[in-house]
Parts: sequence; structure tokens; C-alpha cells
Amino acid sequence: MTKPKQLSYYALEGIPQIKAGDPLAQIIHAAVKENGLSLQDGDVLILAQKIVSKAEDRLVNLSTVEPSERALELAEFLGKRAELVELILRESNDVVRTRPGTIIVEHKSGFICANAGIDHSNVKGKWGSDEDWVLLLPEDSDASAARIRAELEELSGKRIGVLIIDSHGRAWRNGVLGTTIGASGLPALQDMRGEEDMYHYKLRVTTIATADELAAGGSLMMGQANEGTPVVLARGFPYLLREGNAKELIRNKENDLFR
Amino acid sequence: MTKPKQLSYYALEGIPQIKAGDPLAQIIHAAVKENGLSLQDGDVLILAQKIVSKAEDRLVNLSTVEPSERALELAEFLGKRAELVELILRESNDVVRTRPGTIIVEHKSGFICANAGIDHSNVKGKWGSDEDWVLLLPEDSDASAARIRAELEELSGKRIGVLIIDSHGRAWRNGVLGTTIGASGLPALQDMRGEEDMYHYKLRVTTIATADELAAGGSLMMGQANEGTPVVLARGFPYLLREGNAKELIRNKENDLFR
Repeated sequence: MTKPKQLSYYALEGIPQIKAGDPLAQIIHAAVKENGLSLQDGDVLILAQKIVSKAEDRLVNLSTVEPSERALELAEFLGKRAELVELILRESNDVVRTRPGTIIVEHKSGFICANAGIDHSNVKGKWGSDEDWVLLLPEDSDASAARIRAELEELSGKRIGVLIIDSHGRAWRNGVLGTTIGASGLPALQDMRGEEDMYHYKLRVTTIATADELAAGGSLMMGQANEGTPVVLARGFPYLLREGNAKELIRNKENDLFR
Repeated sequence: MTKPKQLSYYALEGIPQIKAGDPLAQIIHAAVKENGLSLQDGDVLILAQKIVSKAEDRLVNLSTVEPSERALELAEFLGKRAELVELILRESNDVVRTRPGTIIVEHKSGFICANAGIDHSNVKGKWGSDEDWVLLLPEDSDASAARIRAELEELSGKRIGVLIIDSHGRAWRNGVLGTTIGASGLPALQDMRGEEDMYHYKLRVTTIATADELAAGGSLMMGQANEGTPVVLARGFPYLLREGNAKELIRNKENDLFR
């Protein structure tokens, strides 16, 4: 009888609604205990982007946004509100593709996504429910992940990793997939160069997107319909933790055949 | 104290080298037991493409392949062997992008991938190690998944799902990601239309690529360096099983901004 290697995801229950300024690390640390768990060396905490954005007060009221000429024109073409398009442009380095209803951009942090990650769903204004409020991504998700990780390591005394994830569409494939936008404390990419296969050929595929593979399974446990479980604890990540960030996952424009 | 929902992956030890004609379902069923587990309703077995291809005798000796004019020209441009390029073309509906060293195609099954999924690594010829042998993807991975699932359900008496996965590169992002190429018995896409968020807004993101989210975590546990663990048992998939296949995940060309 052999014992298989195991990776487990725990979708933590009982995370409260997050408001601007809430101490996320403390809330998560308490939730881990409340769920009958305790952090161990090598654990990775996977956080939905929205709770990080809310804690960082990234809510914007569209009625306070002044659209530029470019935003007005693009909004007309896209069939979106000009104030929203203005925010998308402000949050982006570059527009990658547009067509009515869809705008794909390079976010200021470097990754490609629709609408610069700005979302209406599960967003409630500061003063009650309001269609005017939208939520921007964290300013710098790698920095957010690093900060939350430092606090969780302080609280727990354990060496952990933190991922911040969002649901991204993909080229060629239907459906959204949980994808890393911020990371700290684990290899986002695992370089396999120099490794040999079973027959001692050198591997040609040199890097595995380990953080994105971990993120996707975590996303599955969060679902999409509500934010009841925006924090997932992953135990059994099969690579050694090291310093790392989501920037590793961003392909240079020059090496990208699909920009 | 609350009990969190849990998703666990078990990387099964002891799967032997697979040869043409091997009874995969029986081998997997035995391995599950050997690893101290038994199949339960709702489990999903995630299989690396290579063991399915090997069982289906998809090894080809390049020296038996006659390259066409087109393959010869393209091989020159790509810097690849003409016999390999010929096989890539035969396995594809369409060439999506090329540049020296890289060819991205629409595989006959509809999904987009490099080299039509043809691989050299962990491939050993029928008669000893030989650089001339390559391994094609299964002819129809959905059909393979359905067949293996039927046999496993027969052996176990349980209602399960089966995924066949391969490591795919992505637009915009570095590293390969475990991706579904064949599926049976589970929702590859989960349609969230009509669901409401916490504030009772209708969700705008309507589908989650549930099979790909599950596949990615399974891939993480297989690694890339060898085929020691080409079968991963996933327990706790958080959606109801239903009939389903990998075709659900393929975006129509007309709806794809990146083809």
C-alpha cells in the first residue's frame, strides 16, 4: 500500500463582508481557526481579488468620473458607459482588442484581461446599493499579496504563500478561469530546465505556470455566484516555497503571438 | 466551528509504464485501491494525455512519414523536422500562428495548441529508445474519456467523471497550464446565467470553465518531469456531475478575437 501525494483546498466559511480598511490578514487568520484548521509551513492562501480591493478602498462612484474624448468615442463603439470606459483606460497600459460589448486591455500591472478587471457584481456602494459603484483591481496586487503574507506569517509563525486571483477569460476557450494577478512567497513559474524525462531526454517544455495551476483549483472552490468563500487554503503545493510574484507569469509583448 | 468545503487531489503512485492495448481503466482502478482509496460517487479521475495516447497506440515513427511540399516549406521556416511538421498538419484543421520554432494550430478536435500536441518527451519507441518516435494525441479525447469512464463506472459501481488533460501554453502568459482536451461525465462549463450575486444583481460572467479549473490543479500534482503520476483522483468537485465533454470549452472561431 502506498500513500499518494495530496493537495487539498479548503474553502473557508464565515469570512464577513469586507469594508475599506478591514484588517484582512487578521480576518483570514481568525477564519482559518474558525474552520478547524491552523496554518502550516508550505500552505498557500488564495484570495479572491474583490476582498483585497474592498479592503484597499478601490470602490469608485462612476458619477464622479469625467470621461475623456477617447472614452466617449470608445464607449459609443463598445456600448458601455463612458465613465466606466474612462476608468478602464486609466487602469490600463494598452488596449489589446475591442468589439461591441468587449474590451480587452493590458492592465497597469501587465496582465491582459477584460475591462481592466473592473466589476459591478458583488459591489455595493459605500452608502447603500447603487448601480453607480464599481470596484477596481488592487493598485499593485503583488504588493498586496506580499503585505498580507507578511502579516499572516507574523500572526502564525509559519512560512506561507499568498495568491490573489481573478476570473479571466481566455483566447480560444469558453468560460472564465481563476488566474493569478498577485503572488508572494511561492514560485509563480517553475523552471524545469535541465530536468530529464523518464527516458533521460531533456525536457523541451521548460516552465510550468505553477501559481496559475494552483489558482484555478482554488477558484473552483470559490465559485462565482457570491462571495461567501473568497478565501481558500491550499495545503500540499508540491513545490518548494521561494520568493516569487505574478510578474513572472506575464509574457513580454515581443514574445507574444497574440497581442 | 464550521467545516470548510474541501477539494482534494491524490496523485496515484504505482501506475506502470503504459503500452499499446493496456487496459487503462483496470490499471487505474487497481491503482486507486493500491493507494488506499476507493472510488466514490462524484469523484473525477484526471488522466495525463500521454498514457491514453500510449494505450491507444498513437506512437508514430517519423521515418515512416512522407512530408508534403507544404510541410517541407513550413519545416524550413520553423526549423523543425519536415516529417514532424507533416504530422502536425495532418493532425490539424488550421494553422493559427507560426514563427521560427513555434507552430500553433487548431487540432482536429477543435482546441488550439502548439505542435498539435505531438510530443517527444517521455516517448520511447516500440522497440527501444529512439529519437524518431513521437506520440500523437488521442484520436478523439472525448470518446476516450467516455470509454474509460464507462469501464471505471462498471468496475466501481460509482458515478464518476473523467478528464484527459495536456499542458498548453497560453496567449499573454508564461508557462504551461494543465488544460482539458477530453472529458466525460462532468460539466466542462458551468452556466451561471440567472444566478444572482450577494446584492441580487444578475451575474454578467455567465460561464465558469469548471473542467479547466479542475484540470489545472490536477496537472500541478502530475508535474512535468516524468510520468510517475499520470493519474490524479479529485474528490470534492463542487458541482453536480452531468453528461459533458471538452467540446463545450472550445470557443467558436467567429467569437474569438485571438485567432
